[in-house]
Amino acid sequence: MREIKAFIRPSKVNDVALNLRKNGFCCFTFFEGEGSGKYSDPKKEYPSIKHPYLHSRIAKLEIVCDKKDEQPIIGIIRDIAQTGNSGDGLIYVVDVVYKSRIRNG
Amino acid sequence: MREIKAFIRPSKVNDVALNLRKNGFCCFTFFEGEGSGKYSDPKKEYPSIKHPYLHSRIAKLEIVCDKKDEQPIIGIIRDIAQTGNSGDGLIYVVDVVYKSRIRNG
Amino acid sequence: MREIKAFIRPSKVNDVALNLRKNGFCCFTFFEGEGSGKYSDPKKEYPSIKHPYLHSRIAKLEIVCDKKDEQPIIGIIRDIAQTGNSGDGLIYVVDVVYKSRIRNG
Repeated sequence: MREIKAFIRPSKVNDVALNLRKNGFCCFTFFEGEGSGKYSDPKKEYPSIKHPYLHSRIAKLEIVCDKKDEQPIIGIIRDIAQTGNSGDGLIYVVDVVYKSRIRNG
Repeated sequence: MREIKAFIRPSKVNDVALNLRKNGFCCFTFFEGEGSGKYSDPKKEYPSIKHPYLHSRIAKLEIVCDKKDEQPIIGIIRDIAQTGNSGDGLIYVVDVVYKSRIRNG
Repeated sequence: MREIKAFIRPSKVNDVALNLRKNGFCCFTFFEGEGSGKYSDPKKEYPSIKHPYLHSRIAKLEIVCDKKDEQPIIGIIRDIAQTGNSGDGLIYVVDVVYKSRIRNG
């Protein structure tokens, strides 16, 4: 099993979610964070009141999948989340050593 | 070392936290997210205003532990977080290659 | 590649972010959570209204880096996030099996 994490633009959350579901990948979670990236643009971005050194709102997608689904899912996320501009974000993958559903183990 | 992550119903957060502490597992963090699951029930759940394609509020538990504590912790989370209904959530485990306390290394 | 995660005091977020950038580590994200730690101090901390058994606000830092940058980054986080008091938090590292930028793969 693999855990895919993607840091994407918050404006892309709906489209990524819609396209994952359309392609049969039902189950994922988004979290909101605040960060700093290589290409942060001070003209378009603004410092957070709480955290002046963090100036990008970021949505993190987490999805656990079979190894065979890893690249298809990454392909969907990249296709939809890509604008071609700097700041599009990052996808990375971690190996999962154990997984079970809570309802039925 | 292992990192256990559990996606559970927000309504189960207090009971899971209480029972982890009761059993000697003191240290964990919860995060709030929004997601989409296999058994999302459109009659009981609602789309988020911000994210129409995400209709479940999700609490994520993160806990780092010794390998020997992995299954006992998973057992507690599953026992408490389980309702028997679909949508109870997911537990998974990732290997941790390095860990240190910030206070004293 | 590695993923470094650090659970730190929210009051340390700005200084950690500033010092990571100063040292050439541009890209990271912070998330807000609520937790329970080994040294939670009931005199200084307070139960959350939503979650009575969670009494510490926690900031989680996530940063993906080359293996060679792992210990330098951990050193910066530890230097800046350390107060010497209990509750300073935790740093841990997970191996990353795949990584790509969304903009250009």
